[in-house]
Amino acid sequence: MSAREFERIARIAAILGGAGAGSGSGSGVIEVGIGDDAAVLAPTGRRTVWTIDAAVDGVHFDRAWLSAEDVGFRATVAAASDVLAMGARPVAALAAWTIPPGLDEDTIDGLARGQRAAADALSMAIAGGNLSDGPLLSITTTVLGVVERARAIGRDGARAGDRLVLLGEVGAAALGLSALRAGAPERAEDAVSVWRRPPVHLAASTALADVASALVDVSDGLAQDVGHVAHASGVRAVIDLAAVRARRRASIAAAAAALGVDLDRLELAGGEDYALVAAVPEGRAIPPGASVVGRFEPGQGVAILRDGRLEPAPAGHVHGGSR
Amino acid sequence: MSAREFERIARIAAILGGAGAGSGSGSGVIEVGIGDDAAVLAPTGRRTVWTIDAAVDGVHFDRAWLSAEDVGFRATVAAASDVLAMGARPVAALAAWTIPPGLDEDTIDGLARGQRAAADALSMAIAGGNLSDGPLLSITTTVLGVVERARAIGRDGARAGDRLVLLGEVGAAALGLSALRAGAPERAEDAVSVWRRPPVHLAASTALADVASALVDVSDGLAQDVGHVAHASGVRAVIDLAAVRARRRASIAAAAAALGVDLDRLELAGGEDYALVAAVPEGRAIPPGASVVGRFEPGQGVAILRDGRLEPAPAGHVHGGSR
Repeated sequence: MSAREFERIARIAAILGGAGAGSGSGSGVIEVGIGDDAAVLAPTGRRTVWTIDAAVDGVHFDRAWLSAEDVGFRATVAAASDVLAMGARPVAALAAWTIPPGLDEDTIDGLARGQRAAADALSMAIAGGNLSDGPLLSITTTVLGVVERARAIGRDGARAGDRLVLLGEVGAAALGLSALRAGAPERAEDAVSVWRRPPVHLAASTALADVASALVDVSDGLAQDVGHVAHASGVRAVIDLAAVRARRRASIAAAAAALGVDLDRLELAGGEDYALVAAVPEGRAIPPGASVVGRFEPGQGVAILRDGRLEPAPAGHVHGGSR
Repeated sequence: MSAREFERIARIAAILGGAGAGSGSGSGVIEVGIGDDAAVLAPTGRRTVWTIDAAVDGVHFDRAWLSAEDVGFRATVAAASDVLAMGARPVAALAAWTIPPGLDEDTIDGLARGQRAAADALSMAIAGGNLSDGPLLSITTTVLGVVERARAIGRDGARAGDRLVLLGEVGAAALGLSALRAGAPERAEDAVSVWRRPPVHLAASTALADVASALVDVSDGLAQDVGHVAHASGVRAVIDLAAVRARRRASIAAAAAALGVDLDRLELAGGEDYALVAAVPEGRAIPPGASVVGRFEPGQGVAILRDGRLEPAPAGHVHGGSR
């Protein structure tokens, strides 16, 4: 390892271990962080939830449209989203970065600052990482979480009669990406902001998990991810488009209209929302911030209730980055 | 997700979850594996060790010289090596793969078979993974292990007077890579085999950790990795080259001679050995397979005792893959 690499790692470690490292739910769990062969976490006595997620330049993000901080933030939130989707509390993240030749040190520091900001928003620690050379920039993040309830909340617990409940915003991220692709980010500022820095709903996620029979995060489009719950649970999901529309922010609706974009479609199939969808049995209170946007019933697949008529769910999804 | 992607994932899951998934030390810990948002692990009541490691085509490996199985095997062993180097027992791995357009399905299955073979050798489970498109093949692996002793064994516990103990082979992997680069793998078959499938010393690693005051894996060359222990522990390490040479297999020495390669240099600075080096206090038994190859003393840095004279350790290391 060269002196420059040592210096780079020390600088990154200072950023990642900085503000927030000693606070939040991750603190106290990390016994050994950056600097040894591996991180060491204290026993929690709980089930552990564990995920890995890759963010590759030109595939999952486009640096022309994102600051380095945004890239680090998005990569971290995307990985942690899978932990929230199991009804778990994120505790710590590790990331492997591949760094292309000549990438400037400011960009590297920005990535670390973005990861740190996301970890702060998620109240988790960053336990270390791994740097290597690579032909293009990528950040692959693994997140550990703890399950503070009797069990993790999978995709397979939905039952006919359960309500379909949405937490967070769908469609806005895809609208922001559309605006960037159209070269008109100024016409959809709120949407672009959502795409660049996916909002984190930490406390609300926990409250939703407390009442959920099934839970999934919305990363590949609402209809597709609800479809995973329907499939795993052996039920049919009906998404009530009017209830989804009722959650729209005025600024997002106005931006979609100004750009001539079909917001219904983006809400159902936009992708990269990092919202949460739950099945919630009747009689359990829906937590603040979440609302009922449909129902599970006997059958299979996903249907959309649009203007009083049922139609099939849209196939596929718009994916992020530059392609 | 397309029908083809679903099919691919089902096929990979069958390979990864196949032989070995229900046996070994990982079994019983994975409550939810492939198929939900994240893996769920049962509480172990132990400290957890956690690492991440990237393997990128053209940087960490070259597919011209490795089968797909080798690529998967190496990536998994390299990541698990960091867990062994903390004195922990690997329990499970997760991997994020980026797959370039047009990569054939046989290659993909081979990667999975290689990961599965390594996981079997390490007696661990594969808890899931993540597939995404990417311009080139990469496998980023995260491994969790449990610490079954009072504490993890870091790099910082070596004391003056401790013996420097080596487990596993150094130099052979770099020799194998040299032979491949020279277009003469048939002249160093054992060495090429070590480079392609790094040997796993699972039981011996645990035995070494039982007596170690400090522990590190040798991935960047013996001298450099011993240097990490010396630096973290505030002591000086002296590597006795005669003792290192005494561990040479005859076939490796003969191959180095045939190829005209300086085996001393590769043993000290070859890289990709995935051997283990420990500091072991006097009076503790050295476990079978390991041997004393030097000593820690007051001071700093690393010195090489060669033919009765001390000299500075070689800087840097030869790294793997094609550059």
